[in-house]
Amino acid sequence: MTGATPAQRPAGRPRSQEADTAILTAALDLLIELGAAQTSIEQVARRAGVTRATVYRRFADKTELLVRALEWANHDHDPDFTGWRDLDHMFGDWAEHLADPRNRRLLRRLYGSVDDYPELITTYRSVNGGRRAALVREMLTRTRDLGLLPPDIDVDVVSELLSGAVLNHLGTHRDGESAETVKRYFMEIMRQLGHRPPVTRKR
Amino acid sequence: MTGATPAQRPAGRPRSQEADTAILTAALDLLIELGAAQTSIEQVARRAGVTRATVYRRFADKTELLVRALEWANHDHDPDFTGWRDLDHMFGDWAEHLADPRNRRLLRRLYGSVDDYPELITTYRSVNGGRRAALVREMLTRTRDLGLLPPDIDVDVVSELLSGAVLNHLGTHRDGESAETVKRYFMEIMRQLGHRPPVTRKR
Repeated sequence: MTGATPAQRPAGRPRSQEADTAILTAALDLLIELGAAQTSIEQVARRAGVTRATVYRRFADKTELLVRALEWANHDHDPDFTGWRDLDHMFGDWAEHLADPRNRRLLRRLYGSVDDYPELITTYRSVNGGRRAALVREMLTRTRDLGLLPPDIDVDVVSELLSGAVLNHLGTHRDGESAETVKRYFMEIMRQLGHRPPVTRKR
Repeated sequence: MTGATPAQRPAGRPRSQEADTAILTAALDLLIELGAAQTSIEQVARRAGVTRATVYRRFADKTELLVRALEWANHDHDPDFTGWRDLDHMFGDWAEHLADPRNRRLLRRLYGSVDDYPELITTYRSVNGGRRAALVREMLTRTRDLGLLPPDIDVDVVSELLSGAVLNHLGTHRDGESAETVKRYFMEIMRQLGHRPPVTRKR
């Protein structure tokens, strides 16, 4: 990726690309394990197997490092993805994401650092949120227009409400629930909002 | 309260009750300002104007201190309070609580410490949550039975959904919104759930 080949690599010193990856991986892992406040450049350097100077050459400070780690971890989200088939499909996706304890913990860490490192949640939202939020609203609008949600539903309010439902799940449901159980949680919430899924015809 | 009078108090040394209050106040303030992970017994002692030994005589460790501070801060909630007149009254109360930046920050700190200090949110919930949660469900049930919510609404799911709405508000709305604005947020959510407030008769 950087054009460096193994032959060009000085013995015992990771190539630039390797050091980048090691640093970003270590930063993301420590953010998830310890949270932003408890993570230090020192620890990141140690875990990545580089010197502190190597980290500081690339990142001005801890906040910049964590912001870049979040961007990096989300850099390869499929750009071809243009939305979900239906609500069932959408919440199936959400549930799979939320069934992974690592994802849950990262989201809690981001929320938990809102007062001290507001840049982190802002970054996460701008990387994940913008396009994704639009797709969620589109999905809700389509569902409503198909007559499966009350006609006067406000998709923006429902979107906020679903974000809250994610936070509530992360805070009050134990990690380790199956994706199926998590999905049921969301479908039950949609039912309260008047969602009536299309009747499947029996053969 | 302890029976000690000023005359019995050794000069320069706070009485037991005074030391207790100073320690618990300092602990709660630091929890709100810095979060649980960043708070230390050392800092609490310094801010309370006592020695570390004085703190350790009363509390085995930081977690116990923070748990007791949370219990103490919530000890005088009115036991005569038996519920709200209607949804409007309930969300008016919630909104006043959530319009205070200090309350918002405490709730974020508790949520943010869920992975490292799970005892804190458990304590907060058991002090505030048990009876309060029952009153919320009762309020929702009554509203439904009055025909102001759809008859098939599930009050437990709606309760969870409202907890999520609080978390979403704490995380995405800026501190400093007026109580009136916060209340509108909740009433709008209830409208999505099919709440139709009673029509006020014109004179």
